[in-house]
Amino acid sequence: MAAPLFEAVPNFSEGKDLAKISRIADAVRAVPGVRVLGLHSDPDHNRSVLTFAGEEDAVLSGAITLAKACAADLDLASQTGEHPRMGVLDVLPFVPLEGATMDDAVRLSRRTAEILGSLGFPVFLYGAAATASHRRDLPDVRRAGYEGVAERLKDPRWRPDYGPHVLDPRRGAVAVGARPFLAAFNAFLDTDDVEVARQIARRVRESGGGLPAVKALGFLVGGQAQVSMNLTDLERTSIPVALEAVRSEAIKFGVSVESTELVGLAPLAAILDAARYYLGLRELAPKHILETRLHGPPDD
Amino acid sequence: MAAPLFEAVPNFSEGKDLAKISRIADAVRAVPGVRVLGLHSDPDHNRSVLTFAGEEDAVLSGAITLAKACAADLDLASQTGEHPRMGVLDVLPFVPLEGATMDDAVRLSRRTAEILGSLGFPVFLYGAAATASHRRDLPDVRRAGYEGVAERLKDPRWRPDYGPHVLDPRRGAVAVGARPFLAAFNAFLDTDDVEVARQIARRVRESGGGLPAVKALGFLVGGQAQVSMNLTDLERTSIPVALEAVRSEAIKFGVSVESTELVGLAPLAAILDAARYYLGLRELAPKHILETRLHGPPDD
Repeated sequence: MAAPLFEAVPNFSEGKDLAKISRIADAVRAVPGVRVLGLHSDPDHNRSVLTFAGEEDAVLSGAITLAKACAADLDLASQTGEHPRMGVLDVLPFVPLEGATMDDAVRLSRRTAEILGSLGFPVFLYGAAATASHRRDLPDVRRAGYEGVAERLKDPRWRPDYGPHVLDPRRGAVAVGARPFLAAFNAFLDTDDVEVARQIARRVRESGGGLPAVKALGFLVGGQAQVSMNLTDLERTSIPVALEAVRSEAIKFGVSVESTELVGLAPLAAILDAARYYLGLRELAPKHILETRLHGPPDD
Repeated sequence: MAAPLFEAVPNFSEGKDLAKISRIADAVRAVPGVRVLGLHSDPDHNRSVLTFAGEEDAVLSGAITLAKACAADLDLASQTGEHPRMGVLDVLPFVPLEGATMDDAVRLSRRTAEILGSLGFPVFLYGAAATASHRRDLPDVRRAGYEGVAERLKDPRWRPDYGPHVLDPRRGAVAVGARPFLAAFNAFLDTDDVEVARQIARRVRESGGGLPAVKALGFLVGGQAQVSMNLTDLERTSIPVALEAVRSEAIKFGVSVESTELVGLAPLAAILDAARYYLGLRELAPKHILETRLHGPPDD
């Protein structure tokens, strides 16, 4: 049995200065056992998302290295951008991958949070790692923003889980948590009427009484209406189930799904789910995939 | 770039004597660089299918080791079984996997055939490795069977490609070839009427004017009618295309596909094809799969 793997998807508050962004990403890339899977920088939001993976200790090292690099190179007191944020290292979610459970990811997030606290970052645990129900949702944790978090740290309900109760104005505070893998899945409609996409999004998303663990918005992309979805827990709503909901809502508006796209990476299990769903397969597991057997552990 | 990988799917003429079968399979398993993916023995056919994979030289070594083990342990002069056969090592197809082309598999099959010839096996090349069009199809190559092959070796049209023109009656002759990956895919119908399955099979298979590279038969399995398919070239007919053909024929008989099964292993590309087909994805390649990125070469 190979060691459990984890993914970290930290967001840090720099999306314009490519020299700084590279320095920060390269520091993580240099950590032994860490594999960087993606880096996406948004100049408008002035924010970058780095995705990396590895075994528990390597991912922990990568996260600590990242936090130090952010604190060394960034200064939140002088940072501006459209996106809500409260720290130079703003959000640090851990995701259980192969062989890892959500409990494992919670343990990793708390180990990391404790070290970040000792390094002087006020840390709020969120998601599956939250220590109180009002701290579970990231938007709630981050609601005060950088501008309000110094005040918030004095509120007993918002005591940080680790680290100082006093804010270093340069580095701010960080939300550290554990969550399932998130899939970004978009459905393009055969219409240029963005209002149709918005209506469909409203009906399929959880907040509108639709599917659990689905966030959705309607956009116009390249002249084509698009239902843009975040599937935040593929075990609660899988890709095919989300798509079939969009398809059946689309029919009611006299339109149809012309094509779809997966943004970023998809776990093999999610693709196997989709194949199983549509092919009606009695069984389809990673062990049935030739490449898994060629490259995985022998003789399972 | 990792080295190209190949699969070998040899059939040998022993399906009853488990001690002999284990000895033969273990000899291959002990070859460095060879990974045994499957062993299926059929006592009625008195025949076993061993599946193994690796880089070119390892698979070549595995095949030669297998041929020697079959010659040492088996005697075709005293073997009986329902399945057509002509040698102790009866058929030896090579399949190109990751990074390998069909030309690579043809080269591997000819390298192997030459060595088997020098070891005293009369060898017929077949499939993509065939040296004449009448030798392409395995049933034609094997038509004389063990009982007729000694006579056939005297026919100029059936001169062996390698090895002696005189048959050693204990070991017989062997067909060595190259072919695409074969997927065994079965569709269970919601009826116990096997005649319906047979009719559907006749309509979807290539020999009945149906889909290219599809073989199909109707069976009754556990009281349920089943259309059993061999998809012999997934680039010509993919799994979803074959299934949709069965589904649309089934409707004409007033039945439907209740579930399906993939027998043995499926290549990742075939599953990605199915997901792409049904989800309407603009793009889905191995590089979009998290596990491929975690375990594959870095930074593609």
